[in-house]
Amino acid sequence: MDRKVYLDNASTTYISSEVLNEMMPCFNSIYGNANSLHSFGRDAQAMVDRARDKIVKSINANATELYFTSGGTEANNWAIKGLAHANKDKGKHIIVSKIEHESILQSCKELEKEGFKVTYLNVDSEGLVKLTDLLHYIRKDTILVSVMTANNEVGTIQNIKAIASIVHDNGAIFHTDAVQALGHLKIDVQDMDIDAMTISAHKIHGPKGTGALYLKKGIKIEPLIVGGNQESGKRGGTLNVPNIVGFGKAVEIATRDLVAVNQKLKTIRDYFVRSVMEKIDYVKYNGHPYQKINNIVNFSFDLVEGEAVLMMLDMEGVAVSTGSACETGSVEPSHVLLAMGLTDSEARSAIRFSFSKSTTKDDIDYTVDTLVKVIAKLRSISAVTKTGRAK
Amino acid sequence: MDRKVYLDNASTTYISSEVLNEMMPCFNSIYGNANSLHSFGRDAQAMVDRARDKIVKSINANATELYFTSGGTEANNWAIKGLAHANKDKGKHIIVSKIEHESILQSCKELEKEGFKVTYLNVDSEGLVKLTDLLHYIRKDTILVSVMTANNEVGTIQNIKAIASIVHDNGAIFHTDAVQALGHLKIDVQDMDIDAMTISAHKIHGPKGTGALYLKKGIKIEPLIVGGNQESGKRGGTLNVPNIVGFGKAVEIATRDLVAVNQKLKTIRDYFVRSVMEKIDYVKYNGHPYQKINNIVNFSFDLVEGEAVLMMLDMEGVAVSTGSACETGSVEPSHVLLAMGLTDSEARSAIRFSFSKSTTKDDIDYTVDTLVKVIAKLRSISAVTKTGRAK
Repeated sequence: MDRKVYLDNASTTYISSEVLNEMMPCFNSIYGNANSLHSFGRDAQAMVDRARDKIVKSINANATELYFTSGGTEANNWAIKGLAHANKDKGKHIIVSKIEHESILQSCKELEKEGFKVTYLNVDSEGLVKLTDLLHYIRKDTILVSVMTANNEVGTIQNIKAIASIVHDNGAIFHTDAVQALGHLKIDVQDMDIDAMTISAHKIHGPKGTGALYLKKGIKIEPLIVGGNQESGKRGGTLNVPNIVGFGKAVEIATRDLVAVNQKLKTIRDYFVRSVMEKIDYVKYNGHPYQKINNIVNFSFDLVEGEAVLMMLDMEGVAVSTGSACETGSVEPSHVLLAMGLTDSEARSAIRFSFSKSTTKDDIDYTVDTLVKVIAKLRSISAVTKTGRAK
Repeated sequence: MDRKVYLDNASTTYISSEVLNEMMPCFNSIYGNANSLHSFGRDAQAMVDRARDKIVKSINANATELYFTSGGTEANNWAIKGLAHANKDKGKHIIVSKIEHESILQSCKELEKEGFKVTYLNVDSEGLVKLTDLLHYIRKDTILVSVMTANNEVGTIQNIKAIASIVHDNGAIFHTDAVQALGHLKIDVQDMDIDAMTISAHKIHGPKGTGALYLKKGIKIEPLIVGGNQESGKRGGTLNVPNIVGFGKAVEIATRDLVAVNQKLKTIRDYFVRSVMEKIDYVKYNGHPYQKINNIVNFSFDLVEGEAVLMMLDMEGVAVSTGSACETGSVEPSHVLLAMGLTDSEARSAIRFSFSKSTTKDDIDYTVDTLVKVIAKLRSISAVTKTGRAK
């Protein structure tokens, strides 16, 4: 089967040609070290400055408030550990949601070993943090709250402004992982009252290996990576000029096309959801029905293993992912879906389909047809009899 | 003046076309997330595996001993802090040389704040760590010694095998920052008895934003960046597939061409040194006379400021760097040159010239001619009278 359909865009995307064209001169023409004083360095720095301007303009920040990193994971590590360490004199309590990315959760685990206390907030069945829980658990020594803008497995968008308001009323710092939201949602750090925010390039047709941390002026942070005086001394290391330029272009394009791409993705997504619900029985739609980004759909298919669905779809050229991160040798059910109240078997039967602006109706038709066959085949060989659960 | 001569290759290099060609398919064809289970992911993982194999083959390591990072600075941070934290039960004493890169020195400063003790070893006037000093300062609770393979400002190559031998006789771990050595020196981690080693792509015509940490099997380290289970759980974050592929190719080329390029660089370097010494008075050659990599030359020019030389050479199209990293607003004299015993004014008058395989004799002639004029002009406007120091 030669047909290939890539529906794993929440994992990573192809680089758009517009972005790549912008990056090309930085590889072998404007190749200087942006920290160098000579013309090669200044030319590189000018490219970085332009890219930074594009990004801060898109999120309504200032150029001095954005620090480039090697990606979302580094920025999340830096935010959690760096903000905690820099503000520990005020308190050692942190709050995050249970559905955060592993880079946030594991950073919290590290802090717990150092003596920080971390509260992990529950979410409701649609993936929303309960504001009453946040109000209940936030306390005087809470220094940091981190809740992602949009979830990477189910797409649910949090009530960021309400969360930020509670956090600030209690004198804490508010960080949000907006890696999945960027390009799918209008992000205005001032309007949303965000103190720190993680973003990444490769989810929006930019290059892998580059992200950034927005840090509101005045917020104290300790560096994660020290060395040269790059990024105002807050993040050492030679700037990855081509990637930063690509990141700037990707954000510029995503901002320019936000409304049109969102409309397109919504149409595709709704068509996909309708087709699956019509053609496959015993399907559970995971996530919020409408308060969500338009590129992610998550379904649990009764009586099958997500891993098996993934593999069989892959054999037919369709690339998707399970709800869970793949651990070497074993597959743990998604912590996100479990936090939303799914049973272990519901979580294990989940598949995430994620679309891009290039996904076509034909791609969807092919995927649904293939999915119908795959699910039927897996269920027919399943030793378990169908449950009586309503679809 | 349209002529441009780039003699700052120790700072960063252009990407070679061979490397870029290898990277290109990973931008928009093999663009999957190497951690994904489907064919797009497996294709990306296969590219990463091939690149890793090229690098470990070059340094005589195993594929399970190399971890990709966002560059040398991250790898140095990780090595110093991660090795210290993972082995602190054995002791809290660390030894590094005074001429290490800032990413090593600043990581040590962070550890000092946490209660670690750090000994900073002196070097001799040619930039070599004194082995008697190492023997003197190493002790029972020394857990880690880090000495760079070749220095980034003067090019001096340390006696790595002798240092490793002393370190291991005393039961400590030996890390070396080989960022400047890679591609200029045959590196064999087994023969050189190295436990941990930092390397980077962008100094050898590979892409910016990618490096690696070699970590000998069995050596314990704590992660710096946590998240997904990439890199055996030791370094989270989506793998930067195009850059890793470019890194692999750059190492392959550098290894293949090592002897020829070294010979070429030596010829160019010797011609440059001879020309400068012949045509300019009151010049001090900094670094080891022969135990050094061939791409770096460092001179102090009496009675001038390095910064001024850099700026005036830049106006004539010649890109060089001062011996020191440029701090915003002020220029501190190089800690490397000061450690080698240079006076403050000698260190402040230093310029590093660093060549690549593409540097031509014409480039050198133009540079020396320009340099002669620049130094003469600066000295003529210098308020200070010439010292009587022998040239």
